[in-house]
Amino acid sequence: MATLEWDEHEGGLRLLDQTQLPLAEVYLTCRTASEVARAIRDMVVRGAPSIGAAAGYGAALAARAGVLEAGAAELRASRPTARDLFAAVERVEAAFQRGGADAALDEAHAITRETVDECRRIGAHGAALAPAEARVVTICNTGALATVDYGTALGVVRAAHEAGKRPFVYVMETRPRAQGGRLTTWELRRLGIPHKLIVDSAAGLLLQRGLADLALAGADRVCANGDVVNKVGTYPLAVLCREHRVPFYVAAPSSTRDPNTPTGEDVKIEERAAAEVTSSAPPGTEAWNPAFDVTPAGLISALITERGVLQEAGAWRA
Amino acid sequence: MATLEWDEHEGGLRLLDQTQLPLAEVYLTCRTASEVARAIRDMVVRGAPSIGAAAGYGAALAARAGVLEAGAAELRASRPTARDLFAAVERVEAAFQRGGADAALDEAHAITRETVDECRRIGAHGAALAPAEARVVTICNTGALATVDYGTALGVVRAAHEAGKRPFVYVMETRPRAQGGRLTTWELRRLGIPHKLIVDSAAGLLLQRGLADLALAGADRVCANGDVVNKVGTYPLAVLCREHRVPFYVAAPSSTRDPNTPTGEDVKIEERAAAEVTSSAPPGTEAWNPAFDVTPAGLISALITERGVLQEAGAWRA
Repeated sequence: MATLEWDEHEGGLRLLDQTQLPLAEVYLTCRTASEVARAIRDMVVRGAPSIGAAAGYGAALAARAGVLEAGAAELRASRPTARDLFAAVERVEAAFQRGGADAALDEAHAITRETVDECRRIGAHGAALAPAEARVVTICNTGALATVDYGTALGVVRAAHEAGKRPFVYVMETRPRAQGGRLTTWELRRLGIPHKLIVDSAAGLLLQRGLADLALAGADRVCANGDVVNKVGTYPLAVLCREHRVPFYVAAPSSTRDPNTPTGEDVKIEERAAAEVTSSAPPGTEAWNPAFDVTPAGLISALITERGVLQEAGAWRA
Repeated sequence: MATLEWDEHEGGLRLLDQTQLPLAEVYLTCRTASEVARAIRDMVVRGAPSIGAAAGYGAALAARAGVLEAGAAELRASRPTARDLFAAVERVEAAFQRGGADAALDEAHAITRETVDECRRIGAHGAALAPAEARVVTICNTGALATVDYGTALGVVRAAHEAGKRPFVYVMETRPRAQGGRLTTWELRRLGIPHKLIVDSAAGLLLQRGLADLALAGADRVCANGDVVNKVGTYPLAVLCREHRVPFYVAAPSSTRDPNTPTGEDVKIEERAAAEVTSSAPPGTEAWNPAFDVTPAGLISALITERGVLQEAGAWRA
């Protein structure tokens, strides 16, 4: 499934509109950095690695139009939390300095290729950790949609499946935007991997009753100290996993690590519109809608990257 | 607000249809135990004490119709978890044995009166625990809708508000049926108590960032050992509260205690239809949809009952 791809004929970035899944498969083409920034902000494209790849193409489009500085600023302002977005824009800016607009586009292509390649390596490393017939609990969408192709945490499940390990996945629906309920279910169905959807709050009983063998999550940013910023709800899942001695793994490319963010407390957590939460509430109801939370390094059994499985200093071991 | 009341003129139990709130205030009248059982099963009436009161009237209707045995069986089969339902049916059965159908109806009236009276006493005891300007996090709906009137956990907030303590409430939306998002918000708005809605998963970041001073939950059943069975998501909230040294209180009438259920592991957890969870998922998606979970006694700072504030042996103290 092509989550995003460069369309040279159209001179733009073709995106699968993730807000319309699973009801409809709609594609749209962004021809300017502004259009890419809007697609990121509106979550037409989402998932830290996919956002990074899209932002790379957005910066390349800005470079081609001779407005790289403004375009890069607009892209950086689209969503504040994911490390990948900032890293991709920086790389395309540096390429432009070296070789102009063509080099900028080549860099965007390279980012996209590397992202998929890293995911396949993450999958291979992670699948080795998963026992046969592993019952996995996962949050948000960390599959092909989130990463251009293959996936990070869901890539581990996919690699285990491809290795004949017969994983079963409990998919947390991931309110308020239901990336688990809408997107992870859609991907698992296409891959033929058995799964059941649960409300986010049911992860407690799931672990309490011994129904999951491991948890897998992605990461939007890994801080210098190993704290992980990821979709809101990741932290409660990690606390519950420690409570029940179930390993909690984070799968992410090593580029997600941000040496300039010392700890999770230093991260600006994006707060999104109340309307994402209040659809069934009385008119005028206010909401607090943070998109991410922080999982301290000590709750993470291991970080699965394209370079291998890293166990943080001080991390809890299953 | 009259959540339920006996309508002698109509010869039935008048219910505010909670499935239609907050969009519409619709009332319906149940004239048979079967109709009451269906209203409980479909969550037209919900909340353990309201279910108990409704079941009492349902049994009284069955007694009047000369079909108490069958009606009681149907009521008991409507929802398996809440203690109040079983206790109410037992009381009405015993009253019928003593004094026939009129005594059965009187007993249903007594259950309803006692429920509201107990809630007011729970509120008074609990409000004494809440600091001024307390920031409270709560799950599900435990207000007047859930308890005929006033509320248990939300009754504590209401009593604190009435005592001039200016509480602020973070309302967990409580997927899949959004009793927090639809009902608790609706009650708090009518009471003029400030609040914000959050997705269930945001409770972690809320506590991590020090934004809540205490948590309040109700109970569907308190086991002999003090374990609390309540809405799914209560257990994760309790674990997070201990993690952040935030007191976790359970407010419930002492009749919620079931001496015949030794521990939470002995409770049958109701599993509801997948369709409650899968509305935005691809067609055919399976779900695991437990309605409740178990919070071990050791995670509960205190149990607030109409008799006072009880601290369990071994319970964690804030």
